[in-house]
Parts: sequence; structure tokens; C-alpha cells
Amino acid sequence: MPKIEVCLSPALLHLYNTEGANVVIIDIFRATSTIAAALDNGAQYVLPVASVDTCIDLGTQIAHSVTGGERDGKVAPGLQNGNSPLEYTKDFIGGRPLILTTTNGTRLLHMVKGAKNIIIGSFLNIDAVSKFLVEDGADVLLACASWKDRFNLEDTLFAGAVCKKIGDQFSMNCDSVRMARTLHKQSIDVGLLEFLKDSSHYIRLSGFGLEKDMEYCLTPNLHPVLPLLRGDKLVI
Amino acid sequence: MPKIEVCLSPALLHLYNTEGANVVIIDIFRATSTIAAALDNGAQYVLPVASVDTCIDLGTQIAHSVTGGERDGKVAPGLQNGNSPLEYTKDFIGGRPLILTTTNGTRLLHMVKGAKNIIIGSFLNIDAVSKFLVEDGADVLLACASWKDRFNLEDTLFAGAVCKKIGDQFSMNCDSVRMARTLHKQSIDVGLLEFLKDSSHYIRLSGFGLEKDMEYCLTPNLHPVLPLLRGDKLVI
Repeated sequence: MPKIEVCLSPALLHLYNTEGANVVIIDIFRATSTIAAALDNGAQYVLPVASVDTCIDLGTQIAHSVTGGERDGKVAPGLQNGNSPLEYTKDFIGGRPLILTTTNGTRLLHMVKGAKNIIIGSFLNIDAVSKFLVEDGADVLLACASWKDRFNLEDTLFAGAVCKKIGDQFSMNCDSVRMARTLHKQSIDVGLLEFLKDSSHYIRLSGFGLEKDMEYCLTPNLHPVLPLLRGDKLVI
Repeated sequence: MPKIEVCLSPALLHLYNTEGANVVIIDIFRATSTIAAALDNGAQYVLPVASVDTCIDLGTQIAHSVTGGERDGKVAPGLQNGNSPLEYTKDFIGGRPLILTTTNGTRLLHMVKGAKNIIIGSFLNIDAVSKFLVEDGADVLLACASWKDRFNLEDTLFAGAVCKKIGDQFSMNCDSVRMARTLHKQSIDVGLLEFLKDSSHYIRLSGFGLEKDMEYCLTPNLHPVLPLLRGDKLVI
């Protein structure tokens, strides 16, 4: 039976064997939610890059591309758009490449080595991701992007939700999995949004007026796509 | 208001500012439980060391000392005793120095820099530790020794239990604290031991027949002491 594990921070990634595994990158607020939304709305591909400067450079080189990314909750200077799934509507992003720079998700994605597949996971596409993991059958690592390497609740809740859905198809001898499942179970009664209202990230982002964004990011299966990394691009 | 935070693994310690803080080392199964028991039972001091070889060397140099430590659940070759709180009775350890080597707790203790106090925390002395933290009033870092840097449930449950007891005296804007509190809350209904029965560490240690040890380690306030690091020694 393949195994499923949860990595709580990029700073713990070295403890896990990603060779041949399906690695799901999780950055609920908001990189992986935005990627799922943009691709479902017709983006040709998403190119994740680490720095604002690279993002600007590539934006001038790639025809018809859109650049996006935030620093401290605002559109980064020199970029056209932010990191909100609500910005990348069909009318706007359809048929165009999105070059995206984010603080946590992009970095983690570039750290993973030797994976069978690197998959973008969010509540917006949770069932598509879960179905793929079961059908493919390789070992799974649910990798939380966290916040500057610090544990966060929303990424862990997503990991717990996936384990709840498909855990019985995998072995789960990992305390992170047990914890994520327990957290997720606790969140069901009150609802994800309510459960997260005193979390660090919710407090930080609501300071920028991004409550609607977060509500959107927590809505299951609005964008039922399976974004996979192929070369340096995310495609569906 | 001082803050209280939870560090889930030694591999995340660099994210926290330990300068001037009260840092509680937590290794429930079983280093910090054993240290509390040995000191309460009259050990002159506990000297934590990283390697078995150092432990053996110091054992020959320090008069009347006892050496203890395990590797893979057995007394390490060359040492006299293991890492069970049940071994260090009053009759045996009273008045003698204990030189102890453990895999996770000792390493974490040596990693902490600039702390106001380094404190040994376990369920066996939870009220003594909590009382000290409130009375002293410095920032607090509850530092889980984990298992070879991997998140574990029992250390986190202890952190959650401390936050439940004294959290209202501190600011708690830290998702690890929120998670630890949620976990602890979930454990109350079923009991700590029952909650931990499918955890990695419980499964591993019960394979060595150590169920009694673990039950002992989860009993609150059996050894109400406050072990502090002074120089290289733990004393009460």
C-alpha cells in the first residue's frame, strides 16, 4: 500500500523522500488557489518564478503574457496584477500565459526534487487532486508552503481534508497526518472560514481587506482542474 | 504582554527568537520525563550529553555518577541504565549525578542560544513549569524535541496543555499554538493515553514493551520540580 505523509513546512522537506512520489504543493492563501483559478479560466500556462525582477523580465519577453505577484499584500511594483484568484477571470486570462511570483508556494515548488509529479493543490480543486492521487497510486507527500517556513493552519487543514477523503487508500503512519486529520475534523462543525478567523494568515490578509479572497479560496471544487508541473510550467 | 509560541521541531528553531526568552524543552517520550523524575528523586544533577561515548567517558570521571541512555529502545552498550523514568528511583539515584544521553531532547537543548532560562517540561511537572512561566513573565517558547526533527503528537499535546493553563497571560498570535490547543482539546474527551495510541512514538515504543513507561510519562504532576539548565547541568 502506498503511503501518504504531510510535510508542515519547507524547512522540513529534507526529512521526506520525494523521489518517485506525487508531491502536492499547498499554498491556500493564495498561490495555489490562484493557479487553479487562472488555469481553469483558460490561462495557457502558469510560469512560477521566485523573484519580482525575473517576473518583470519574462513579462517583457513572452508575448501576450500577464505578470502577477504580491509582496506584503499589494501588487509588487513593476507587475501588472496581484495574487488574487478573483483577478484572473476568463475574459482576462483566457489564452494568455501567467508569470506568477509568490513568497512561499513558488519557493517550495522549486525545492522538490525527483518527484513523479508536482501537483498544485487547493480547496478549489481538491476533488480533482484527490482522484488523481488515488488513481495514480504512488506515494504521496502533501507539502505545505506555510508562511516563511512557519507552520500555518490553512495549508494543514487542506492536507487533513485530503487525508479524510482518500487516506483509506494509503498507509498513514505519520503524526503530521494524524494532527492534520484531527484539525480538519474540528473545523467541520464550525466551518473552515470560521475556524480560520483567528489564524495568523487570516488576520494578516484581512488587514489588507482580502476577506472575499479568503472565502473564495476555501470554496471546494470551484475550479476542478489538475495543474501539473511540466518542465518549468504549470499546465492542465 | 509577553508572547507564547510553540516550535514544532528543532529544524524550525531558527525561526524563533530565543534571546531573553524562557525556553521549555519538551521530550515527553521520554527524556524530559526522565529528567524530572530523576531530579525529584534526589539526583544531584543531570548532565545531558549528545553521544554515548561522551556519556561513558564522563561516567568514569565523575565520582558516584550513573550513566543512562538508550538507542533504539535498548540501554546503549557501555551505559548502566536506560531512559525510563521508572529506573531512577529515590533509592537508586538519590545524591548521585546522572549523565544522560538521548537522541532528541539533548540535541535540542544544546541548540538553544541566549535564552533567559532553559527549562525541562513534561506532564510530570507541568504545573511547576506553568507557574514559573507566569511568575517570571518573559516571552515563552515551548520547544518540541520531536522525533529526528519530525513533528510528533505527544510533545505538541504538552505544549497545548501549557497554553490551555496559562495562555491567557500571554499573547498567542501563532498558528502552532492554535493547533496545539485544538489537539489538546480533542484529547481531553478520550484521555491523553488513548489519544496517543495510534501515534508513531507510541507504536514504536510499545514494540519495545514500554507501555507502562508511557502511561507514567503522561501522569500530571507526579514530580512537581522545576529543572533549569545552569552551566551544563540540569538542577532543581
